[in-house]
Amino acid sequence: MDFGLGERSLAGPANAAETGSDTRPSEANRASSARPRVVIVGGGFGGLAAALALARAPVDVLLIDAQNHHCFQPLLYQAATAALAPSDIAWPIRHILRGQANATVLMASVQAVDADQRMVSTSAGVFAFDFLILATGTTHSYFGHDAWEAFAPALKTIEDATAIRSRTLKAFERAEASDDPEERARLLTFAIIGGGPTGVELAGALAELARRTLPPEFRRSSPCRARILLLEAGPRLLPTFPKTLSEVARRALTRRGVEVLTETMVEDVSEGAIVAGGRRIDIGGPILWAAGVRSSPAGAWLGAPCDRSGGRTRVEPDLTAPGRPNIFVIGDAAAAGPDGGQAPGLAPAAKQMGKYVARVIRARLGDKPAPGPFRYRDEGSLATIGRNSALVKIGPVTLTGFPGWVFWSAAHIYFLIGARSRFFVALSWAWSYVSFQRGARLITRA
Amino acid sequence: MDFGLGERSLAGPANAAETGSDTRPSEANRASSARPRVVIVGGGFGGLAAALALARAPVDVLLIDAQNHHCFQPLLYQAATAALAPSDIAWPIRHILRGQANATVLMASVQAVDADQRMVSTSAGVFAFDFLILATGTTHSYFGHDAWEAFAPALKTIEDATAIRSRTLKAFERAEASDDPEERARLLTFAIIGGGPTGVELAGALAELARRTLPPEFRRSSPCRARILLLEAGPRLLPTFPKTLSEVARRALTRRGVEVLTETMVEDVSEGAIVAGGRRIDIGGPILWAAGVRSSPAGAWLGAPCDRSGGRTRVEPDLTAPGRPNIFVIGDAAAAGPDGGQAPGLAPAAKQMGKYVARVIRARLGDKPAPGPFRYRDEGSLATIGRNSALVKIGPVTLTGFPGWVFWSAAHIYFLIGARSRFFVALSWAWSYVSFQRGARLITRA
Repeated sequence: MDFGLGERSLAGPANAAETGSDTRPSEANRASSARPRVVIVGGGFGGLAAALALARAPVDVLLIDAQNHHCFQPLLYQAATAALAPSDIAWPIRHILRGQANATVLMASVQAVDADQRMVSTSAGVFAFDFLILATGTTHSYFGHDAWEAFAPALKTIEDATAIRSRTLKAFERAEASDDPEERARLLTFAIIGGGPTGVELAGALAELARRTLPPEFRRSSPCRARILLLEAGPRLLPTFPKTLSEVARRALTRRGVEVLTETMVEDVSEGAIVAGGRRIDIGGPILWAAGVRSSPAGAWLGAPCDRSGGRTRVEPDLTAPGRPNIFVIGDAAAAGPDGGQAPGLAPAAKQMGKYVARVIRARLGDKPAPGPFRYRDEGSLATIGRNSALVKIGPVTLTGFPGWVFWSAAHIYFLIGARSRFFVALSWAWSYVSFQRGARLITRA
Repeated sequence: MDFGLGERSLAGPANAAETGSDTRPSEANRASSARPRVVIVGGGFGGLAAALALARAPVDVLLIDAQNHHCFQPLLYQAATAALAPSDIAWPIRHILRGQANATVLMASVQAVDADQRMVSTSAGVFAFDFLILATGTTHSYFGHDAWEAFAPALKTIEDATAIRSRTLKAFERAEASDDPEERARLLTFAIIGGGPTGVELAGALAELARRTLPPEFRRSSPCRARILLLEAGPRLLPTFPKTLSEVARRALTRRGVEVLTETMVEDVSEGAIVAGGRRIDIGGPILWAAGVRSSPAGAWLGAPCDRSGGRTRVEPDLTAPGRPNIFVIGDAAAAGPDGGQAPGLAPAAKQMGKYVARVIRARLGDKPAPGPFRYRDEGSLATIGRNSALVKIGPVTLTGFPGWVFWSAAHIYFLIGARSRFFVALSWAWSYVSFQRGARLITRA
């Protein structure tokens, strides 16, 4: 297992001897590197699942990510609202794969993919592959209004979470420092744009911060008077959930003092204000963007067709890119299924795809029987509103309120990686539950 | 208890009626604000101790800090080396004082002090005081070579710690990404400038990271080959400790693979290199500055005389600024005692001064008997080298090795603030001790 030196000085392709359409690595290349090489781009849920599922395959795995850590995105909103520390929900990728002898991890940015020559160009050099798995995930989309990003940050990375945490806590500090009641009210007006799970979870967590955690510590201002607006362009919150659960979410948030505005399209975002539903609203606190995502540039690297809505690469039933039987696109980067919408942009879908492509690769190498086309298996939907309140939909079963919240908590602890995280997150939650406190209320400078 | 509105619109001084040298607030001012106001600038060990010691005094306390958090600086090196999360060692100041009804906390930067008019100007307005406690601490000093700061960051804040953590972890990642053995060796050369407690602790922690934590996770490079240089201009490490302990520290570090270079003056620092003891050394990894501190501008605000070495304000035996009986300077900002060196720049000294000035203020208000002049009580010195190794000097007792380390660990847990921190830090250490792992290995972008 040696990635690098050899490949980087290679002028020619990895499989120079191979010109046909056979998708198995040539004997020549196998002999030189001993085992076929699988390069995985992206250490999110999809890429990591693929790497782990290849642990016993007769391949060498190279996982490349621009970050050194895997981030557990379902709990990112808790890092953004000071409930958990960033290191509670992010772990070095190489630590997760430390016991897997056939896996090498490299922190580098991918710049280009040469699909014909089977080479990936990165900030740390060029690497040849026999199989490539693109698991590059999504970034936020402002639907053509990229200028809004400066005023309404989105929540995709650990850095986003700490920046949003600082902005949020600073708004309360500024209100405390102000003598002007109008200015205080302005500073304590928050807007969350987008009523999907991230928007709902952020709104619920902000409401708890303002109404429960902070009030005993402020002397001049009243954090509990904070106005928290949740704006959704569509007719209801959580559009992927059943209608009844959307209504439960709306009521639970309203009870917590969140102003839920559905059918309210945001028309403009600027410094300290938004225009929504035809009227201008002053927002002195943070404006948070939870409205849209778009796929990372995997499709562009391949020149492959993308779906219109999110830039996801349309893939074949075996998750390969069209005409590229050795290149897979998985997770949020892929539009799987005939209508491009079979698998939702969720962690379970990405994990299923990662495991599936590992099986396909093992089958190609004669190591396992070939699987049928990829089928997404719905593992259910979860969203939390806050203390004692979450929504769960698994098959025909729905849970809300306290039972939903217990299930949500247990499921998230279960899906965290490593005994340490499970133990520490569970303890943090237990402590917060008893004390109403949040353990990571730091304002840090960027 | 209402700071702000009234004072901010006040054109005149807080004690307009008072012109004599009587240091007790005038009856006029007392009547208008009900109770004398104590403004504390700085929420470090000194300022916080003063605020807490005034909990039952007949005063209103306003604590102003530019940060929202109190940082437990003795463990900052652990945040910088990924052993603890920043939020394990930093807590919102207003959270610490939440139960103290006579205390208000404000996040603001102090810009000037008008000692005659008894007003403090801040980014959040002007505040009148009857008593002022300046507890502004230190910042790093590059002894006139401010240009070195860009290449050799120092460790004073949470932001410094996360930046140093990123730089350190990135050096290992870059070495892993490189194919050139010389380049790898260069990238894995670290330098720590300054052989006091911070330098010794950083060197020991870096050595453990390189030799114990990281090796199982790297495939192409060998973190354990990292060169860690600890440079000290003086003849021995830990100059404030007894000579025998300095020798113990040197041997313990050398055993861990740290190259200890005493009597080695750093003459220049630039991008990727230092000149020390007349020769140039390529440093591809981080260069860390642990060599000097200088006092924050409390003395300059007052126009008071400072000591030459660190810019600390020379104070009277009762810790008041010369000729300013209502203004106290404490902690690292103060040069207490006849020779200006009676109290060292340590947390216990700052805490003792904070408690002492609270007693002086209570005595001035007739609330308590007047204390004698401030006397620093030596509570001992502690420094850790790493796993199973620390130095303890308390009166005639010295401990080293495992007993020292157990004492060091227990003392630091004890001095952390709040049950949550104690519990979580103790658990983190226990987990690290068993697993050799570090829980906060995140590389984040600034």
